[in-house]
Amino acid sequence: MTFRKDHLLGIEHLGPDEILAVLDLAEGYVELNRGPRKHADALAGLTQINMFFEASTRTQASFELAGKRLGADVMNMSMQASSIKKGETLIDTALTLNAMHPDLLVVRHPQSGAVDLLAQKVNCAVINAGDGRHEHPTQALLDALTIRRAKGRLHRLTVAICGDIAHSRVARSNILLLGKMESRIRLIGPPTLMPAGIDSFGVEVFEDMREGLKGADVVMMLRLQKERMDGGFIPSEREYYHRYGLDAEKLAHAADDAIVMHPGPMNRGVEIDGTLADDINRSVIQDQVEMGVAVRMAVMELLARNLRRRRAA
Amino acid sequence: MTFRKDHLLGIEHLGPDEILAVLDLAEGYVELNRGPRKHADALAGLTQINMFFEASTRTQASFELAGKRLGADVMNMSMQASSIKKGETLIDTALTLNAMHPDLLVVRHPQSGAVDLLAQKVNCAVINAGDGRHEHPTQALLDALTIRRAKGRLHRLTVAICGDIAHSRVARSNILLLGKMESRIRLIGPPTLMPAGIDSFGVEVFEDMREGLKGADVVMMLRLQKERMDGGFIPSEREYYHRYGLDAEKLAHAADDAIVMHPGPMNRGVEIDGTLADDINRSVIQDQVEMGVAVRMAVMELLARNLRRRRAA
Amino acid sequence: MTFRKDHLLGIEHLGPDEILAVLDLAEGYVELNRGPRKHADALAGLTQINMFFEASTRTQASFELAGKRLGADVMNMSMQASSIKKGETLIDTALTLNAMHPDLLVVRHPQSGAVDLLAQKVNCAVINAGDGRHEHPTQALLDALTIRRAKGRLHRLTVAICGDIAHSRVARSNILLLGKMESRIRLIGPPTLMPAGIDSFGVEVFEDMREGLKGADVVMMLRLQKERMDGGFIPSEREYYHRYGLDAEKLAHAADDAIVMHPGPMNRGVEIDGTLADDINRSVIQDQVEMGVAVRMAVMELLARNLRRRRAA
Repeated sequence: MTFRKDHLLGIEHLGPDEILAVLDLAEGYVELNRGPRKHADALAGLTQINMFFEASTRTQASFELAGKRLGADVMNMSMQASSIKKGETLIDTALTLNAMHPDLLVVRHPQSGAVDLLAQKVNCAVINAGDGRHEHPTQALLDALTIRRAKGRLHRLTVAICGDIAHSRVARSNILLLGKMESRIRLIGPPTLMPAGIDSFGVEVFEDMREGLKGADVVMMLRLQKERMDGGFIPSEREYYHRYGLDAEKLAHAADDAIVMHPGPMNRGVEIDGTLADDINRSVIQDQVEMGVAVRMAVMELLARNLRRRRAA
Repeated sequence: MTFRKDHLLGIEHLGPDEILAVLDLAEGYVELNRGPRKHADALAGLTQINMFFEASTRTQASFELAGKRLGADVMNMSMQASSIKKGETLIDTALTLNAMHPDLLVVRHPQSGAVDLLAQKVNCAVINAGDGRHEHPTQALLDALTIRRAKGRLHRLTVAICGDIAHSRVARSNILLLGKMESRIRLIGPPTLMPAGIDSFGVEVFEDMREGLKGADVVMMLRLQKERMDGGFIPSEREYYHRYGLDAEKLAHAADDAIVMHPGPMNRGVEIDGTLADDINRSVIQDQVEMGVAVRMAVMELLARNLRRRRAA
Repeated sequence: MTFRKDHLLGIEHLGPDEILAVLDLAEGYVELNRGPRKHADALAGLTQINMFFEASTRTQASFELAGKRLGADVMNMSMQASSIKKGETLIDTALTLNAMHPDLLVVRHPQSGAVDLLAQKVNCAVINAGDGRHEHPTQALLDALTIRRAKGRLHRLTVAICGDIAHSRVARSNILLLGKMESRIRLIGPPTLMPAGIDSFGVEVFEDMREGLKGADVVMMLRLQKERMDGGFIPSEREYYHRYGLDAEKLAHAADDAIVMHPGPMNRGVEIDGTLADDINRSVIQDQVEMGVAVRMAVMELLARNLRRRRAA
């Protein structure tokens, strides 16, 4: 069981054994982060650069803490909108950073595929921290770790993903991962928020929340991007909450021990009832954040190992 | 003599022995910071997060340096105005950060009481770096250390605090601290900038600067918030300086060896004459900045000790 | 051969032996940065503060990485436009930071001479990271290291500097350095972008690109500040590229083994043809970025050594 990739660009090309390699290593970091001395030296002597072309307080913080706790020299670059007008500028920026010899480059970018392109231009390990509507692999990995710890396994589960599937890289990476792990996936949402041709992914699609939740082991809510409302995808927050917002009544249709997830930040009273979100018997939303730091530590350590092996060869 | 608190939320609940515990430990850090190798490992393996909901270049810098010099993994979070629209968001942000297992959370927030509220939701040590008009405890502690080093003691001094008392958390924390230390406090300022019911604090109130300064050992000027002028609290900068700006003539009414303090950043020519501010025989304004780093190192070390003890129990 | 300065404010006052001391030390850091463990402890226990009054992603990143890789505690201060309205504020800011006992202060400022002024007020080592149109000494040093590695020497070379000479601190620092190293300097550009009285520097001035490039060993392109176009200095991007943009045809007039340099960020198709910029047989633009980190590590180590010696005395 080993992690073979030079970069983490998406879940798409990972094997099930590679996914498990990340989760198993992450388990140890969960313990480290809970302990009295949350610092190791797996990345000592290495340089990590976080390049966020899209603002994201929590994801950037998670990667920053992960790197610092592993002893890396960590640098944040805030890439303002003004510096990404032309496609070529992304490449020039990448080449410039590459010349500074980073070892790990964590990149978030509003365009799908931008991180893949960048990875071809540099000779360090690149981690996709979210690119357009494409992938957000560390989110899927942290969700998987959260599910495995709550349910004891990742296979043969029924997982319902609810909300704006069409625009969500979180949904996409989770569908890919859960599919590789042989779990059964149900997508629930209004047709306007469902991607075209989704049936070919081997998922079941539901427009009715209660029907889709029936017997689900895991209920994964997605964040509603408020800008979708102007675009005519959904009628109003109130109407959306009425039909797709998760509350105790709707959750009652899922399995008795179903867990509730949300990638955050939450719109309480829109996608999810606030009381339910805080119910520690059902909600694992805080666990997801905790697993996020551990999973990112594991991913960076595995990539750093491969990088060292490659360079020594 | 010991520091018993889990958080530093204000001076209000500190005992005199706890105040002295901070100052005594800080003395050692003053020396460390002046020496050739300004780095220790009291916070090694711990994570410090600075959450500033209000911009403050100097206070944030002071905490950041304090943490880095003690070996903590330090992360700054710039919490933009947009992310604090709803009261619930503060709690969600706090819970999210808490799930990342910080050990020390340094928080500045524009609303009085927000930091107390946050401290109830997390299981790490919280330090109030200024909340609304409520408290700014590390400022009072650094002021106390500055006074003790200049005057040799904190008790039986006459301390004049001048300016916008009503809106100042600096004044409030200093009044509480100096009161606990049995110093005599005089407040000087226009009635519009004096808080209602201030007499119950055991202070003397003066409208006339020269009268209030008579025999004072310490003259503590406050920053004038320019927005008060629009609110009709004070007539104009020129008029304010004429009546309440500290210059050599007014200072002559204080004790011969009175020291001059200001929390910064100064409005030269408004609260204080620029030449007097730079007069190293009277002004201890730069010392206050220096003591700030040392006091914050001491506070964080004491809180980390209690945190470790609590977790080991 | 030794570096004698307390600060690095400009190339102007450096001796040739001091320039070589920086470059020789930097050579070792080039190797460190390429190796598996890019971390040393030359600055361990020291505090580095980066104060950028002008935004500069790449220069700040280069200094930040340089300091972190040498083990310094590094802090970035973003000095917003609003806080530099008055000249006195710069001094107050400097005094405040100085009271926090930094060891190395890296400063970029829009006004020529501001960094020199600041250096007089503090008792740590100050590095000019670019001040107005005055100097940008680490850029000239990294350019020198790049040239020396490509050409084997710094003396008796013919170096053509092309573009907006009048407004360029990069040009100014390079002219000073190359002059001290006894290289022959040619300046090429429209008369409106040529500084008055430049002849006294012992340089040759050309209006025609092909004529100026004849036999040049090094072709150093400058970034075109787009705001110059509104000011009437140059007619249009297209016209500028036609006359002064470097392409293969114009470069053919230089020496057969001439190298091409650019301080970045590039305006492809304005100052330089994109294909030429990427041609690794001619362009050393990425090398410049790489040398930048190494040179800044060397400069900070040399200044830290002098600082320690001064303090121990």
